[in-house]
Amino acid sequence: MIEEVLNILQMMGNSLRIPTSFVIIESIGTIAFAISGIRLASAKNFDWFGAYIVGMATAIGGGTLRDVMLGIPPFWMTNPLYIICCAGALVYVILFGKKIINQNSTWFIFDTIGLALFNIIGLEKTLNMGYPYWMAVIMGCITGAAGGVIRDILINEVPLIFRKDIYAMACIAGGIVYVVGNAMGLQAEVNAILSAIIVISTRLLAVKFHWQLPILKGETDESDKK
Amino acid sequence: MIEEVLNILQMMGNSLRIPTSFVIIESIGTIAFAISGIRLASAKNFDWFGAYIVGMATAIGGGTLRDVMLGIPPFWMTNPLYIICCAGALVYVILFGKKIINQNSTWFIFDTIGLALFNIIGLEKTLNMGYPYWMAVIMGCITGAAGGVIRDILINEVPLIFRKDIYAMACIAGGIVYVVGNAMGLQAEVNAILSAIIVISTRLLAVKFHWQLPILKGETDESDKK
Amino acid sequence: MIEEVLNILQMMGNSLRIPTSFVIIESIGTIAFAISGIRLASAKNFDWFGAYIVGMATAIGGGTLRDVMLGIPPFWMTNPLYIICCAGALVYVILFGKKIINQNSTWFIFDTIGLALFNIIGLEKTLNMGYPYWMAVIMGCITGAAGGVIRDILINEVPLIFRKDIYAMACIAGGIVYVVGNAMGLQAEVNAILSAIIVISTRLLAVKFHWQLPILKGETDESDKK
Repeated sequence: MIEEVLNILQMMGNSLRIPTSFVIIESIGTIAFAISGIRLASAKNFDWFGAYIVGMATAIGGGTLRDVMLGIPPFWMTNPLYIICCAGALVYVILFGKKIINQNSTWFIFDTIGLALFNIIGLEKTLNMGYPYWMAVIMGCITGAAGGVIRDILINEVPLIFRKDIYAMACIAGGIVYVVGNAMGLQAEVNAILSAIIVISTRLLAVKFHWQLPILKGETDESDKK
Repeated sequence: MIEEVLNILQMMGNSLRIPTSFVIIESIGTIAFAISGIRLASAKNFDWFGAYIVGMATAIGGGTLRDVMLGIPPFWMTNPLYIICCAGALVYVILFGKKIINQNSTWFIFDTIGLALFNIIGLEKTLNMGYPYWMAVIMGCITGAAGGVIRDILINEVPLIFRKDIYAMACIAGGIVYVVGNAMGLQAEVNAILSAIIVISTRLLAVKFHWQLPILKGETDESDKK
Repeated sequence: MIEEVLNILQMMGNSLRIPTSFVIIESIGTIAFAISGIRLASAKNFDWFGAYIVGMATAIGGGTLRDVMLGIPPFWMTNPLYIICCAGALVYVILFGKKIINQNSTWFIFDTIGLALFNIIGLEKTLNMGYPYWMAVIMGCITGAAGGVIRDILINEVPLIFRKDIYAMACIAGGIVYVVGNAMGLQAEVNAILSAIIVISTRLLAVKFHWQLPILKGETDESDKK
């Protein structure tokens, strides 16, 4: 029974990993991330250039930070696809502006699929370079979540994922599943799909049921003044 | 006719590129960038150390980001010239303080020349490493404009170039001219001067005629609250 | 007489540098840095994940920036000790919360010892890679002080060390002593202890006597508006 499920997942994996579909998913994820950045930039009255940079930082910032720390050239420097996707996102926001609000749930899904995929890319890249499992989980999380932190720094806001949203925890859950699967000898494709399911379902459930990490109680103002 | 103009430009190029003049221009550009950072830091009541760091981030931050992404040691780590120029800028601001306001147009010119030069340095460095043209344009723009973004993050302001000023677009215009010239086989010196002329004139005209990129219309507050 | 003092310092150095003690000091320093970040994050009502990231950025951000600029893998990527220390710091703050205020002077001492040690690690690492003395002083300062800047960027505040506190100047003083000692041929262990004494005493004296760098006088608001 389990073997059958794994076979089915593996077939899904094989079909998923044919380059074309992979590139399509990656492009949609990049566009979804960029749109989230561009919309926040527009709320701050950035000009087109500023919005484009914030969109790019959101979409490729996490992977860039990962690659710089891994000591390899940032992934977008060898393939103009990502720059072009971000430009497409900018054009889309310029053209459709406020109508995007009505597509919020659609973009939320794309954003979540992008998160799952970026997480897996970070996991695989780090493991392929021979790093241990705990580093892979961290790098997957950075790939998925650090772009949003850079975005919030650029628009001069406190990073959203530090106060709510279990965005990063979804990456970590998916990352742990991935490295456990890897240690158990699961095929990479099966593993990737399992991990993506965990990331996506964690995030969807978290939003639906308002899951939240505990807030760290601040020391009171009076105490601070002592 | 065109050949003659190119010859003249080439001679200008040869004279410009003798190391001494080059170092002088680069130093003046570094000082102008550092002064812009130090002045903004002083408006926030930073101490001397804080102002120095903000000055340095403005002057060498863009090139550092470029070099880290290119995987080479940041340029200022092999030559103390830049650190010293920034120290000179700090001493200058400490000594002359408010009088610098009367020199605003002078420093604006130096800042613009610095921008043109930094852009060219980024373009050449990236092309010399074998990257494609579009990467060179991006890296030239990062060299010229990213320092100001880092400066604004350090003083906790929304980056200025994201909301007005066509600072970065001047770099991109100059960068496109440079790579077109390079593809047409122009000598590097001629090419550098042409590119510098584009950057400088774009910026001067933009300020004079209040050119601005379109602002991205923000979604209304009401919509945001939905 | 001087030779005897040096001998004593050297023996202290030898005992200090046996790996176990070294690791203990480094761990305590890491925990102290992380706690300072986590406490500031708690004042902003960050959740546990956000607080953990800010704690990590404070403790390992400086060394990460140093290693990225030196072109080597960030130190924490090859040893999970630092990640674990930061997790310990988070648990400690969650459990003891407001009581930490009563331990302020204890954590201040640990933080200062950590600063001295991180500074020395940066100095040694940079010199071992063949960089000149001035680079070593800068890299020591970055190792000790940049984590606090990254922390303040993440919590969206103007970096504290740019306005008060001679945190970074203590690193620079200790760094200069270290490179002078190195140039004079002092043993690394003696040198490290001398440098640590300088950093620690500079910081303690600075806090006790309210030493401060001069504030850079801002241009007046009226002038700014011109």
